[in-house]
Amino acid sequence: MRQLLKVGVAIAIGLAAGAVQAQQKPEDAIKYRKAAMTLVGAHFGGQIGAVIRGQAPYNKDAVVQNATLLEDITKAPQVWAAFAVAGSDQGDTKLKPEGLKEGDKFREYGQKMAMEIASLNKVAQAGNLDDIKKQFGAVGQACKTCHDAYRKQ
Amino acid sequence: MRQLLKVGVAIAIGLAAGAVQAQQKPEDAIKYRKAAMTLVGAHFGGQIGAVIRGQAPYNKDAVVQNATLLEDITKAPQVWAAFAVAGSDQGDTKLKPEGLKEGDKFREYGQKMAMEIASLNKVAQAGNLDDIKKQFGAVGQACKTCHDAYRKQ
Repeated sequence: MRQLLKVGVAIAIGLAAGAVQAQQKPEDAIKYRKAAMTLVGAHFGGQIGAVIRGQAPYNKDAVVQNATLLEDITKAPQVWAAFAVAGSDQGDTKLKPEGLKEGDKFREYGQKMAMEIASLNKVAQAGNLDDIKKQFGAVGQACKTCHDAYRKQ
Repeated sequence: MRQLLKVGVAIAIGLAAGAVQAQQKPEDAIKYRKAAMTLVGAHFGGQIGAVIRGQAPYNKDAVVQNATLLEDITKAPQVWAAFAVAGSDQGDTKLKPEGLKEGDKFREYGQKMAMEIASLNKVAQAGNLDDIKKQFGAVGQACKTCHDAYRKQ
């Protein structure tokens, strides 16, 4: 419930951010969202993933730091708004045209991912590595669902 | 003082993150830190800047959302570690070789920037637009100091 409220806050903020974001050029939207996804990949699959895979020692504070950053990025309304910019399925992007056409479904997947990340941050703060591993898998599944549907291979 | 403590925490976390980050290839470090700086530019100069310049209405929650994301990015030890990767002054980057050679000074500028951003988040949460404008200028100055010294034109 707390997570649903958080997403609700993010959407409410989005109304204010929308005025700025709507003027975004497709190439700027692509550059921005790729940067966001690069950070998500580095801090999720890279930093936390290394702990999950046993390639880095488990350090509670470090996992929380990564999960907090991930939560801030994925709840940022600007990130999802950048995926809705007209024409941004063309150019230097892997976004399938369906990602724009099926915007509601895309945003639903995005919200699901943001909620799973918020849960990851919650279990990271609780500090049980088994729970973190389980929730890491749930986040990965949420990423994959959207990538399978809307990202070119 | 609270900000100095925060930076201290970030540095402590960095010790744990370092094990992962030290293995970074120069091209990966460049891609990652450029992504981080793209987000900083979008949320500082873009999102908050639009409010400062009067191009977007002032919304306290939206400024806090942007400032919080900025704080979490700029206090991430991975960001500053990526600027210290050997060989990462070559290739698709504007980092001057001096940025690596004068690593201590570079990190000092980075910490100064992270502290000014933390102060920006603090005044954003307090919600006085005049204070936000003033601190926005201080952050911009901290960005400029490092760019002037270590970023190619």
